Amino acid sequence: MADEVKIYRNWSSPYGLRIVWALDIKGIEYENIFEDLSQKSPQLLQYNPVHKKIPVLVHKGKPICESLVILEYIDETWKETTPLLPKDPYEKAMARFWAKFVDDKLLPSVWSVFTEKGYEAKKEALVPAMQNLEFIEEQLKGKKFFGGENIGYVDLALGWIAYLLDVFEEVLNLKLFDADKFPLLSGWMKNFCDAPAIKQHLPPRDKLVTKFQLFHEKFQTAN
Amino acid sequence: MADEVKIYRNWSSPYGLRIVWALDIKGIEYENIFEDLSQKSPQLLQYNPVHKKIPVLVHKGKPICESLVILEYIDETWKETTPLLPKDPYEKAMARFWAKFVDDKLLPSVWSVFTEKGYEAKKEALVPAMQNLEFIEEQLKGKKFFGGENIGYVDLALGWIAYLLDVFEEVLNLKLFDADKFPLLSGWMKNFCDAPAIKQHLPPRDKLVTKFQLFHEKFQTAN
Repeated sequence: MADEVKIYRNWSSPYGLRIVWALDIKGIEYENIFEDLSQKSPQLLQYNPVHKKIPVLVHKGKPICESLVILEYIDETWKETTPLLPKDPYEKAMARFWAKFVDDKLLPSVWSVFTEKGYEAKKEALVPAMQNLEFIEEQLKGKKFFGGENIGYVDLALGWIAYLLDVFEEVLNLKLFDADKFPLLSGWMKNFCDAPAIKQHLPPRDKLVTKFQLFHEKFQTAN
Repeated sequence: MADEVKIYRNWSSPYGLRIVWALDIKGIEYENIFEDLSQKSPQLLQYNPVHKKIPVLVHKGKPICESLVILEYIDETWKETTPLLPKDPYEKAMARFWAKFVDDKLLPSVWSVFTEKGYEAKKEALVPAMQNLEFIEEQLKGKKFFGGENIGYVDLALGWIAYLLDVFEEVLNLKLFDADKFPLLSGWMKNFCDAPAIKQHLPPRDKLVTKFQLFHEKFQTAN
């Protein structure tokens, strides 16, 4: 039943996209509920009173919050179709480790390049961000996706890199990513964005550029 | 075989204690390897090159890092004995959500009370910390432990509260926790610390007070 699964998200957030990507990979029907984050709905606040954030997955009326927690829930609830996480406990632990690394280390380090004020500060912030990308590049050795032959949990966690890095480059007018230095990640980005379940949900690039230009102006002029 | 499982930790870190508690609850033999964090061993740096941190669990020569990832690994590898996480996918998602909340929100909010300079700043930092504790109190309604009748994943994640809050109170000379306001959490603390698998690993209180007094002086005098 289509009305069994609802996903509260907005059009651009990579955390929300992780969930729709996963649902589409697994062929699960769902309803999109788009939130205006400047005026959150009473439903969203009721479903996620702790963080008051998207995404929230509502399954048979029960809410689940936090995108990585939702991905595991989806994988465990609809386990007959395309697995997202490996079965082996050690491989599973490695997937969890790298997804956590993406959220706790990689994403904040790239975001700080975006938010730092001025060229010099941004160049400095690039150093740890690139070191973090090197760890990720290393993980792709001998594999098409982090999940092996198919898109899995770590791929979905890292999905934002594939469609946002080059938007950031345009907005910042700064080279963030050198495909020659990261050949595996560069190939992964193409494969990831070309996959039908991913491609159909990628936000329009021009809208992203406009959104992040406004964001960037705000950060550059803030005290 | 005892030499199959090694845990790299130090004597006081709650992240390391989560692991030895879990191993003892499950009756798994292991070897403790105590690290001097001011001079980390080459083994630790080799096993955790990304974060260079304890705890690391080494099982049959393979390292696993990040305490919550390790707990899930332990539960999935030794699944015959005392489960740490619920079987039901929704209940499991709730346990993951609250453990993540403990690490991402509760712990940093309590820690900021510790690190803020001066009485007024500390009192202000107490407000979000207490709000976070209220969320946790709510979760204990009708339950002895977060895991139900037995200690589980969320209990282990929250374990630091049970033995550190009153050490912080002594060091800061500030009331952090009012048992009348948090009757369920207060009862939980007692039950948790009384459990044999937990009690035998609790660090000596006087050593903790000395350690955190030194820490606190450092924070209060830092620029």
